[in-house]
Amino acid sequence: MEYTKVAVDAMGGDHAPKEIVKGAVDALNRNQQIFVTLVGNEEVISKELEMYKYPEDRVSIVHASEVIETAEHPVQAIQKKKDSSMVVGLKLVKKGEADAFVSSGNSGALLVGGQLVTGRIRGIHRAPFAPLIPTEKGVSLVLDCGANVDARSEHLVQFARMGSIYMEYVMGVEKPKVAIVNVGAEEEKGNALVKETYPLLKECSDINFVGSCEARDIPKGDYDVIVCEGFVGNVILKLYEGVASTLISVIKKGLMSTLLSKIGAAMALPALKKTLKSFDATEYGGAPLLGLKGLVVKTHGSAKAKEIANAIEQCVAFKEQNITEKIENILNV
Amino acid sequence: MEYTKVAVDAMGGDHAPKEIVKGAVDALNRNQQIFVTLVGNEEVISKELEMYKYPEDRVSIVHASEVIETAEHPVQAIQKKKDSSMVVGLKLVKKGEADAFVSSGNSGALLVGGQLVTGRIRGIHRAPFAPLIPTEKGVSLVLDCGANVDARSEHLVQFARMGSIYMEYVMGVEKPKVAIVNVGAEEEKGNALVKETYPLLKECSDINFVGSCEARDIPKGDYDVIVCEGFVGNVILKLYEGVASTLISVIKKGLMSTLLSKIGAAMALPALKKTLKSFDATEYGGAPLLGLKGLVVKTHGSAKAKEIANAIEQCVAFKEQNITEKIENILNV
Repeated sequence: MEYTKVAVDAMGGDHAPKEIVKGAVDALNRNQQIFVTLVGNEEVISKELEMYKYPEDRVSIVHASEVIETAEHPVQAIQKKKDSSMVVGLKLVKKGEADAFVSSGNSGALLVGGQLVTGRIRGIHRAPFAPLIPTEKGVSLVLDCGANVDARSEHLVQFARMGSIYMEYVMGVEKPKVAIVNVGAEEEKGNALVKETYPLLKECSDINFVGSCEARDIPKGDYDVIVCEGFVGNVILKLYEGVASTLISVIKKGLMSTLLSKIGAAMALPALKKTLKSFDATEYGGAPLLGLKGLVVKTHGSAKAKEIANAIEQCVAFKEQNITEKIENILNV
Repeated sequence: MEYTKVAVDAMGGDHAPKEIVKGAVDALNRNQQIFVTLVGNEEVISKELEMYKYPEDRVSIVHASEVIETAEHPVQAIQKKKDSSMVVGLKLVKKGEADAFVSSGNSGALLVGGQLVTGRIRGIHRAPFAPLIPTEKGVSLVLDCGANVDARSEHLVQFARMGSIYMEYVMGVEKPKVAIVNVGAEEEKGNALVKETYPLLKECSDINFVGSCEARDIPKGDYDVIVCEGFVGNVILKLYEGVASTLISVIKKGLMSTLLSKIGAAMALPALKKTLKSFDATEYGGAPLLGLKGLVVKTHGSAKAKEIANAIEQCVAFKEQNITEKIENILNV
């Protein structure tokens, strides 16, 4: 049996290295097909690993002496810190020594580094950042969420095809419904970019394009793959998080505002928590950068062990389903 | 005393004419400075009016024989239905017979009609649609939310200045904080449009420009005027509504899922409703189209009397503060 080799940035994120190493161990114990390479300060990682029981024959450590911090300028950080856990990890994928790289570190640096260090598949113009967002019915893949800005129509068409492959073969959605973000449902609506892209998507025989999608309908979960240029996608992703977190805080305030409501809230809490869990993006692992020579996965800066473990396990389907080859093939259709 | 003359589309919206006429009567009874002209089918309107006590000397009816329906194509509807309540109302503003026009009808038609029928102030390139969105701290004005697409940097600068005037003089916010929607907080971030607009906004001495604003931070309410081009603004407005309504439905489902949670929910409900009310956009009246020769206000298609009355009252401040003249003046700064 061939392992899925996942390099993990042990030093990136708010809870590194503790939660990252714990997540890696959880994934290893749960799934026999995974081989993990922890990248970062060898001494620190070894010490963390000592705390757990894990299959030692499926773990290696690759030392990296530097760490890219959250506040660093992405491009400069990638260019200067050649021995950072992030750059070393991305190189492992480029050299084929790992199938995937998972990191909770500096988002901007990871998006830049994926393209500059690991590199795009020949013929793919842009590598979109493609997170799964929670909806009423499950999850939708939104791409590009900000790896690039000022995209052209041919880029959006590639995003649609890559996103469709990811949802079908990694997430197991049959004939994923692909939509383009627009200001109205009618075909003649839109800005210049959308008007140019719409007919091109209609012509794609390898995707199930269902038309325009208004932002209002995204949370309902009627679409599997939601295509947009990076600026708009970034707004969608961040506003989604922002509205949800503000609204939950407003609701909490309401529930805590009177004695009666406090008692009521305590009674309702367990059921409420269970339902809200389905609306929690961290349940679904990390967000891939698609179109690279291998898989690069971004997890939240605040990711804990559960999210890391889910993200690592996600890489198995990516490898087994030969997603990179499938993406290469769309260029020959 | 000079009245604020508000023309009201009595035939537009899901609850027309009943709730529209009721809202107009409420506004008239609340505020002595308002004169309302109800536009639409005279017979229908008269019959509705008969149900209320109201100051008859401050109401008139202007007959219009047609109605623009929700599903109609905006440009075609405005061009063909010359005797619709919407076109007739917009003309009253153009001719100076009304200071403002309030409508719950076909949004696209109103945005188009405002520019085509009422017309822009000379020198204003685009008339942005500028709704107030609820935040944790109050409301923020977001513009443009989709009256135009593919804006240029000089348009965004005008949006910023018009929005600032509106928030200061209509909403009473001192030195409104103006921000531009961006993919990161740093000045060097952004797409081509934002990079071009940012330094122009910095140079404006008549606004309090505070820099970039990530979509994640919009619901927190730290900015008073949020500037973006129409495609992005439309996504923000609709996603805001979509996430909030989906999340509330998910929470309701959670609260109703067990017997214990149902009892708890019943106890918590009154307090919760009160808090959520502060997050309800309809409390704040309608959304203006700025930069026209007079005020055009769009209310929700689902607007009931309360929203209509609030929207009509909003027009008083617009007129008293000479907003149209103040906008004309920015062109001479």
